[in-house]
Amino acid sequence: MQDIIPAISAVAGYVPDYIMTNHELEKMVDTNDEWIRTRTGIKERRVLKGEGKGTSVMATEVLKQLLEKRNIEAKDIDAVIIATVTPDYLFPTTANIVANNVGAVNAFSYDLTAACSGFLFALETGANFIKSGKYKYIAVIGADKMSSIVNYKDRNTCILFGDGAGGVLLEASENEYGIKDSILRSDGSGGDYLYMKGGGSVNPPSHETVDNDMHYLFQDGKTVFKFAVTKMADVSVEIMNRNNLTGDDIAYLVPHQANKRIIDATANRMGIGDEKVTMNIDKYGNTTAATIPLCLWEWENKFKKGDNIILAAFGGGFTWGAVYLQWAY
Amino acid sequence: MQDIIPAISAVAGYVPDYIMTNHELEKMVDTNDEWIRTRTGIKERRVLKGEGKGTSVMATEVLKQLLEKRNIEAKDIDAVIIATVTPDYLFPTTANIVANNVGAVNAFSYDLTAACSGFLFALETGANFIKSGKYKYIAVIGADKMSSIVNYKDRNTCILFGDGAGGVLLEASENEYGIKDSILRSDGSGGDYLYMKGGGSVNPPSHETVDNDMHYLFQDGKTVFKFAVTKMADVSVEIMNRNNLTGDDIAYLVPHQANKRIIDATANRMGIGDEKVTMNIDKYGNTTAATIPLCLWEWENKFKKGDNIILAAFGGGFTWGAVYLQWAY
Repeated sequence: MQDIIPAISAVAGYVPDYIMTNHELEKMVDTNDEWIRTRTGIKERRVLKGEGKGTSVMATEVLKQLLEKRNIEAKDIDAVIIATVTPDYLFPTTANIVANNVGAVNAFSYDLTAACSGFLFALETGANFIKSGKYKYIAVIGADKMSSIVNYKDRNTCILFGDGAGGVLLEASENEYGIKDSILRSDGSGGDYLYMKGGGSVNPPSHETVDNDMHYLFQDGKTVFKFAVTKMADVSVEIMNRNNLTGDDIAYLVPHQANKRIIDATANRMGIGDEKVTMNIDKYGNTTAATIPLCLWEWENKFKKGDNIILAAFGGGFTWGAVYLQWAY
Repeated sequence: MQDIIPAISAVAGYVPDYIMTNHELEKMVDTNDEWIRTRTGIKERRVLKGEGKGTSVMATEVLKQLLEKRNIEAKDIDAVIIATVTPDYLFPTTANIVANNVGAVNAFSYDLTAACSGFLFALETGANFIKSGKYKYIAVIGADKMSSIVNYKDRNTCILFGDGAGGVLLEASENEYGIKDSILRSDGSGGDYLYMKGGGSVNPPSHETVDNDMHYLFQDGKTVFKFAVTKMADVSVEIMNRNNLTGDDIAYLVPHQANKRIIDATANRMGIGDEKVTMNIDKYGNTTAATIPLCLWEWENKFKKGDNIILAAFGGGFTWGAVYLQWAY
C-alpha cells in the first residue's frame, strides 16, 4: 500500500468587521502611527465587538466556509482541531462549540494550545490523523480573539495584536503533492518572556489577579524578538536543507505575522525575495494562531499546483516550527 | 513496509500527598460520608497544596517517572502532549513547562483540552504521531488540578473532584500488540450541562466574573449522568463489536472515574464482571484527564502481554470515546 500524503484541500479565513487603526490607538496610549508602522509594519487590526462573542464566532465562519468551498457536508468531517490561546471557555472547548454550530455530528473535536505556533502544531497533528488512513476529512483551524487578553493601557503590546480566524481542510492527496515535512520545537525556558500569568491553576482568577492585570498578555519584546529572528530562520533553513531546496525552489514563504522585521530577516536567511513572502500584518496585526491560515486564505488564488511553500512560526512558550508543503490544487 | 503499531511502553502516575476525606467535606458543605460513598463511590481525594503550584508540578513527576521506567534520556523524547482543563497558564503551556523541567530539549509540546476525555483524545493523537514513523517516543499525559476550579461551597460538585496526573510513553510496538482501535466523539450541545463560564474569550476575568463564581466548574449532574451512562457504554460496545470481542475476550475495562454507577452500568452493558474493571475512584475521585492513566499505573502489574483492554471515557463538551488496545509488555 502506498503511503498517504496529507494535503490541504480548502482554505478559509474570517476577520471581524471592526477596524482598529493606529490613529485610534494614539488616543488610548502614548504611541503614534508612524512609530507603529516603522517598528512593526502594522497599520490596523480587527477587533471582534459585541457582548458575549468569543473566538468560536470567528472559527465557526471558517468551518462553514471550508465546507462550502470543498462542497462537503458537515457530517462528513471526522475531526475539528482548533488552535487557540483565547478559547471561549476551558470547557466546553471552542472546537466542541464550533463543530456543533455547523452540525458536524460525526466529528470529534478538541482545542490545542501552542500560542503563535498553534496552527503549525495542529497542522502536523491533523496531517498525522490523515496519514493513519482512518480519517477522511480533518478541519484544522487557528483562531484567536486577542482583544480579550490585550491590555489596552500597555502601549508595548496593545498595538501588536488583532482578532481573526483561519483554517484548512486536510485530506489524502489525490496527487503527489501535499504536506511533505515539518520541524516543530519548544523551549519552556522562554516562558519568562511571553506569558499570561493569571487564569490557570497557578493563579486562578480572583480580585487580586484582576487588579494586578494578570489576565493580560505580557511580552518582553526585545528578548522575544531576538529569539524569534534566530529560531524561525533556523528551522526554515533546516527544513529547506533537509529537503534539498534552495531559495529559488521556494514559491512562497508563509510566515507568522508578528513583526515585519522578523519576517524580513527570515526571508533573507532563506535567500528568497519579498515578492515570495505573504504579508498581511499591515491589515490584521498579530492574530496569534490565525496568522498563517489567514495568509493562506488571502494568497490561495496565487498558489499553483506543485508550488513549494514553507510555513514558519515562532511564539509564546517558546514554541516554533516550519512546515514544507507542495500546494495540491 | 509493515504498518507501525503504536504501543504503550511505560506508565506513570502521581497524586499529591494531601488527602481530603469525606469527613473534611462534611465540615465545609451540607453533605455526609455515607451519602457521598453510596452515590459516587468516593471516600477521599487528593489535593495539591502549596502557593503557586499548578498542574505542571504533578505532570513533571509523571514525565520523570516515564523516563526512568523506560530508561531513556529526556533528550530522546520527541513530543510531550498534556491533556488538561487546568493548565498552569494559557501560555506558556503546561507541556512547555513540563518538557523544560525534565530537559526534553528536542521535544515539541502542546496542551490539549477535551475535558474528561482529554487523555483518550491525546492518546489517539500521540498514537498517530508514532504511526507516521517520524517520531520515536511520545509522552501523553493527563493532568488536572481540579481543586483550582472547584467551588468548595457547592456540595454537588466539590465532593466529586480531586487532583492528580498520569501518563504513558508511546512508541512503535516491538511485537504485534499495541493500540488497535479507537472511537472518539463530541457533541457541543452538551455544553449547557457541564462548563466553566468564565476565564476565556467570552467572559474574561473581571471583578464581576469573580463575584459571580464564574471561574468554577458547574455541572447539571442528572443530565450528565444520563448521557454518560448511555454514551460511554455505546462506544465501548461499538468498539468491541467491530473488533469481534465479547465480554469474555476482555481482560480489563479501564473507565474514566466519574461515578461508580456509570462505571458499573458500562461494565454491565459490555458483559464483563467487576473483577475486570479498574476502579480507584474511592481514593482519588474524578481527576478529569488523569483518571485513566492513574488506573493504568495502579493496575500495570496485573496486565499481561496481549491482554485485551478497553479504555472508555465521557466528559465535558460533551466528549466521549473508547480505545481498544492489547497490552504490549
